[in-house]
Amino acid sequence: PIGLIRKYFGEKVGLYFAWLGVYTQMLIPASLVGVIVFLYGCASVDDNKPSMEICDVRNNITMCPLCDQACSYWKLTDACGTARASHLFDNPATVFFSIFMALWAVLFMEHWKRRQMRLNYIWDLTGFAEEEEVRDHNRAEYEFRVMQKSLKKEHCTPKVVVTFAIVFGVILYRISIKAALHMSTYPAARSNIRATVKTTAAIINLIIIIIMDEIYGAVARWLTTMEVPKTDKSYEERLIFKTFILKFVNAFTPIVYLAFFRGRLVGRPGAYLYVVGSYRMEECAYAGCLMELCIQLCITMLGKQLIQNNLFEIGIPKLKKLLRKRKSELDRGSEEERHKTLGRHEKDMILGPFVGLSPEYMEMIIQFGMVTLFVASFPLAPVFALLNNIIEIRLDARKFVTELRRPIAAKAKDIGIWYNLLRGLSKVAVIVNAFVISFTSDFIPRLVYQYSYSKDGSLAGFVNHTLAYFNVSDFQPGTEPLDPNNLGYHVQFCRYKDYREPSWSSNKYELSKEFWAILAARLAFVIVFQNVVMLMSDFVDWLIPDIPKDISLQIHKEKILMVELFMKEEQGRRLALRENHHAQQDNCCTSSGPESPPQPRSRPASHSYC
Amino acid sequence: PIGLIRKYFGEKVGLYFAWLGVYTQMLIPASLVGVIVFLYGCASVDDNKPSMEICDVRNNITMCPLCDQACSYWKLTDACGTARASHLFDNPATVFFSIFMALWAVLFMEHWKRRQMRLNYIWDLTGFAEEEEVRDHNRAEYEFRVMQKSLKKEHCTPKVVVTFAIVFGVILYRISIKAALHMSTYPAARSNIRATVKTTAAIINLIIIIIMDEIYGAVARWLTTMEVPKTDKSYEERLIFKTFILKFVNAFTPIVYLAFFRGRLVGRPGAYLYVVGSYRMEECAYAGCLMELCIQLCITMLGKQLIQNNLFEIGIPKLKKLLRKRKSELDRGSEEERHKTLGRHEKDMILGPFVGLSPEYMEMIIQFGMVTLFVASFPLAPVFALLNNIIEIRLDARKFVTELRRPIAAKAKDIGIWYNLLRGLSKVAVIVNAFVISFTSDFIPRLVYQYSYSKDGSLAGFVNHTLAYFNVSDFQPGTEPLDPNNLGYHVQFCRYKDYREPSWSSNKYELSKEFWAILAARLAFVIVFQNVVMLMSDFVDWLIPDIPKDISLQIHKEKILMVELFMKEEQGRRLALRENHHAQQDNCCTSSGPESPPQPRSRPASHSYC
Repeated sequence: PIGLIRKYFGEKVGLYFAWLGVYTQMLIPASLVGVIVFLYGCASVDDNKPSMEICDVRNNITMCPLCDQACSYWKLTDACGTARASHLFDNPATVFFSIFMALWAVLFMEHWKRRQMRLNYIWDLTGFAEEEEVRDHNRAEYEFRVMQKSLKKEHCTPKVVVTFAIVFGVILYRISIKAALHMSTYPAARSNIRATVKTTAAIINLIIIIIMDEIYGAVARWLTTMEVPKTDKSYEERLIFKTFILKFVNAFTPIVYLAFFRGRLVGRPGAYLYVVGSYRMEECAYAGCLMELCIQLCITMLGKQLIQNNLFEIGIPKLKKLLRKRKSELDRGSEEERHKTLGRHEKDMILGPFVGLSPEYMEMIIQFGMVTLFVASFPLAPVFALLNNIIEIRLDARKFVTELRRPIAAKAKDIGIWYNLLRGLSKVAVIVNAFVISFTSDFIPRLVYQYSYSKDGSLAGFVNHTLAYFNVSDFQPGTEPLDPNNLGYHVQFCRYKDYREPSWSSNKYELSKEFWAILAARLAFVIVFQNVVMLMSDFVDWLIPDIPKDISLQIHKEKILMVELFMKEEQGRRLALRENHHAQQDNCCTSSGPESPPQPRSRPASHSYC
Repeated sequence: PIGLIRKYFGEKVGLYFAWLGVYTQMLIPASLVGVIVFLYGCASVDDNKPSMEICDVRNNITMCPLCDQACSYWKLTDACGTARASHLFDNPATVFFSIFMALWAVLFMEHWKRRQMRLNYIWDLTGFAEEEEVRDHNRAEYEFRVMQKSLKKEHCTPKVVVTFAIVFGVILYRISIKAALHMSTYPAARSNIRATVKTTAAIINLIIIIIMDEIYGAVARWLTTMEVPKTDKSYEERLIFKTFILKFVNAFTPIVYLAFFRGRLVGRPGAYLYVVGSYRMEECAYAGCLMELCIQLCITMLGKQLIQNNLFEIGIPKLKKLLRKRKSELDRGSEEERHKTLGRHEKDMILGPFVGLSPEYMEMIIQFGMVTLFVASFPLAPVFALLNNIIEIRLDARKFVTELRRPIAAKAKDIGIWYNLLRGLSKVAVIVNAFVISFTSDFIPRLVYQYSYSKDGSLAGFVNHTLAYFNVSDFQPGTEPLDPNNLGYHVQFCRYKDYREPSWSSNKYELSKEFWAILAARLAFVIVFQNVVMLMSDFVDWLIPDIPKDISLQIHKEKILMVELFMKEEQGRRLALRENHHAQQDNCCTSSGPESPPQPRSRPASHSYC
C-alpha cells in the first residue's frame, strides 16, 4: 500500500518501502534460480569424479600433516565429506548463476529506475529535484556545529582521517580474525571437531562484526561532523558514505579473507610460512576453503539479519519504550489515570524518536552486497535474503507505525546516494565473482585438466594431478610429526595440494609449469568473464529505457498542455489589460481570433473574456 | 564564433562545430604529453639495455631463418635499427601515457557534457528534448519507403544480415591484408628493403580501406532501409550505428591484426604454422611488430585524414560543382549573362546539396578511436589528430559556407548517438590499451625478467633470455635454408624469439615455464590496468558535475521565477474574472494582499489590475 504509506509518512519513507518491495520482488526469481542451481549440485554430487576419487579408499593417498608436530599424516578419504559438500557450491552451474546474478543486478537497477520514475509521476514530483538541492533548513544548527568544531580541530585534513580509520579498521579486523583462527588452529588436529570449530569461529566473527558495527557507526558520525559539510543534505550523504564504507569493510573482511587469502599464503611442506609468534598460516582441507566460505556466508547472513536487524531493530525500540515508560511511571504516580486523559499526540511522545531511514537502507545494501558479491560461492544467498526481507518488510512497517513517533514527512525524488552505492556494488560484484569462480573454486583447474592433461577428456585422475609429492626427509628439523606412524605404516612421500615439482625433480618443490599455466587460465577467465558480463550489462542497460513509455508519453502530453495553457494565459492577460484600458472592445475579439490556438482540454473556462 | 554559426546554420551544425572545438582544444594537452613521451623515448634510447645488447656485435647471436628455403640464418645485429626505433614507442612512459589518455577521454566527455549544457542554456534548449522525440516530419517519404521495400524483401531478419555483412567484411579484409602481406613476405629475404615493403603494404591497406569505406557506406544505407525503422530519427541513428560499425571494422582490422595476431600464430622452427597454399605465417623481426604497428597507424592516420577527409571532402564537392557548372553551361549558352541576373538563391543552387553531418562526425569518431585505442603503441597520434583538426575545422567551415547549399536549420539538443559511440569507444580503449601494453609491447617480459630472473635487477641478458634454441637438424625436410653457410660458418643452433624449452631439454620445443609465468603476468597486468583505469575514470566522472554550477544555479532561479510568475498569473486571472463579473471591486485588493508572493524580477508589469 505505497500510496497510503506516502500519504502518512511522506515520500521519503514511501520510496524506501517501494524500493524494498521492488528488491524483494526481484529476489524471487533470483532465489528460484539459486535453488535450482543448488539442487543441480545436489543431484550431480554422485556423478562427480573428483569427489568420487577422494572418497575412494582404494586410492589410498597419504596427505602431509596440517600443522607442525601435533598433527600427523592423514588419509585423503577423511576429506570425503567436505569434498562432497563443496561440490554443492562448486559446480559449473555456479558460473552460470553468477553471470545470471550480475545481469539480475542490472535488471534490478533498471526496474527500480522505472518504478521510481512512475512513482515520481504519480506523486507529482517530476519537476521537484532542483528545489531540494539548495535547502538548508537548519542552517542555524549547522552554523553552531561549524563554530564548535572549528574550535576543536582547525586544519585536520579529514580525508586522511577517513583513510586511516578504514585501514585501522581492517587491521583490527585481521587481528580479530586471526585470534578466531588461532582458536581453530589448535584443535584442528582432532579433525572430527573441525566443523564445530569453524562454525564457532564464524560465530565469533559475527559477534565482533555486530559490536564493531555500532562502534563504526559512531566513528563515521564523528568523522563527518569533523568534516563540517556545507549543507544538511551533504552532511547526510557524507555520513552515509562513510558509514557504508566502514560497515562494508567490517562485514566483508572475513569473507574476503576466506575467499582469497586463506590457504593461499601457506607456503609448502618443509618451508611453511610463519607469521607473528611462529604461528603457521592455516591451511584448508582438500576443497575446504570454499566450504568454510559458505558456512561463513550462511552464518553472517542468517546471524546478521536475524540478530542484528530484526532482534535489534524490534527489541531495542521496545526496550527503550519500556524504559521510558518505567521512568515516567516512577516520576508520576497515577500513570493509569493520566493515560486515559492523554491526547493521541501525548501518547506518541512515549514512542521512540524516528532516527531516519539510513539504518534500514544500510542493512539492505549490505544484504544486497552479500547477495551479489559472493553469489558464486553461495547460491542460496538470495533465498535467505528473500526470507529475511519478507519478515523485514512487515517488521519495518509495524515498527514505523506502532513503535516509533511518526516521522516528519519529507519529500524526496529518489533514494539518493543509496542508488549510487547499489550501482557501485553491482559493478564490484562482477569482478569479485570473476575472482571467486577462478581462484576460490576449482572450476578452472578442472577445465584445464579436462582439456590439456586428461587422456579421455574426463576428470579421472584430476585429484592425483592436483597433489604434489613431498619427501618426508625434507621436513625442517622440529616440524616433523611427533607420531609419524599413526596411519599404521611408514610414510616416505606425503602429498599436499599445490602445483609444484615433485621431490625427485631437479628443482624440487619449485612451482611447476602447470601452476603457471593454470594461473594464466584463471586470469584469462577473469578478463573474459568481467568483460563479457560488463558488455551484457551495458547492453541490458541500453535495451531498457529508463522512463516507462506510458509515463514519458504522459509527461510529454502534459508539457504540451502546459505550454498551450501558458500561451493562452499570456494572451488572456493581454486581453484583460486591454479591457482594463477600455479601448476598442470590438476590435479585441476579431484580432484574437486568428491568433488563438486550439482550445486546451483541461481548463476550458480560461478564455471567456469577450 | 559558435553563436554566429548557430544563427546561420541552426543548432545541429552549431553543436558539431562546438564539439569539434572542444575536441581540438582537448587534443592540445594530449599532444603535448604525447610529444614529451616520445621525446623521453628518444632521449632514453641510448641507455636502453636490450637494444644495446641487440646492436652489440660481440654477442654474435645467430637467428633462425624467417622464411622457408629462400631465407637463411641472420645475425641479431641486423635488427638493431628496428630495436632502437621500437624503443621510441615501447618504453615505460607509454604505460603512463595510456593511463593518461584513458583519463583524458573521460575528461573530454565530461568537458563536452558541461559545454553542451552551457550551450543548451545559452541557446535556450533546456526544455526542448521531449518535443523532438516524436517528430516524423517526412512520414510520407517513409511510408513510401515501407511500401517499396516490403515488396522487395518481406521477412529478411535484418540483424542477421548485418552480422553477416560484418563477418564478410572482416574476412574480405583478412584476405586483402594477406595479399598485402604475401607481397611483403617474398622480398623479405632482402632485408634491406623490408621497411619499404612494409610501408607499401600499409599504403595498399590504406587504399583498400578508403575504397571499402565507400562501399560499406552504401551497404549500411541499404541495410538500414531494409530494416524499415519507424521514425526519421531512428532511421538516422540506425544508419549511423551500422555505418560506424562497418567503417570501424574496416579501419581497425589491419591494425588489430598487426597488434595482436601478427607474429603470434607463427608456430616454431621445425613446426611452422602453414595457412592456405602452404604459406608460412609471417613472423616479426625482433621487436618488429610494434614498429610495423606504428608505421601502419602513422600512415592510416596521415593518409586517411589527408587523402580521404580533406582531399575528398574538399575535392569532390568542388568537382561536382565544376561538373554541374559545365553541364549548365552546355545546356544554356549565355551563362555569363544569366549569372549577373541570377538571384542569390539561384546562384546557390549550383552549389552541392548538404548531405548531413554524419560523414563529418564519422571521420572525427574514427580519429578519436585512433587517438584513444592504440595510443599505447603510438604516442604521437594526438599530435597528428590535432594538426588534422586545425585544418579540418577551417576546411569544414569554408565548405559549409561556400561550397554547399545552406542546410535547413535543424534544432538539436545534443550530438545524439555520437555521444554514445564516443563513450563506447573510450570504454573499449581501456581494454585495448591494456592488451597492447601487455601483449604487443615487451613491457611485461622486461619487468618479469628484471624482478625474477635478472641477477642484478637490470635488463642485462634480457635479449638472450627471450631467445629459444633450435637445433638445425630438427628442420622439417624441405624447409631448411638453401644456403646454410651464408654467414660464413656452419650453424648448429639457431635462435628464435619465444619462450620454449631448448633443443637439449627432455621435452624439447615445448612451451617453457617462463612462457606461462609471463603469460600469467601479462594477464594480471590487463586485469589490474583495466580495473584501476576504470576506477579512476568513474572517480573523475563522479568528481566533475555534469552541469556547470553557474548554469544549474541560473536554471534553478529561472524555475523559481517561472513558478512565481505562474502563480501570479493564476491569481491575476482570478482577479480578472472577478473584475469581469463586476463584483466587490474593493474586496479584491485586500484579499489578494496576504496571498501575493514577492514581486517577480523579470516581469514587473504583470500584476497591476486593481
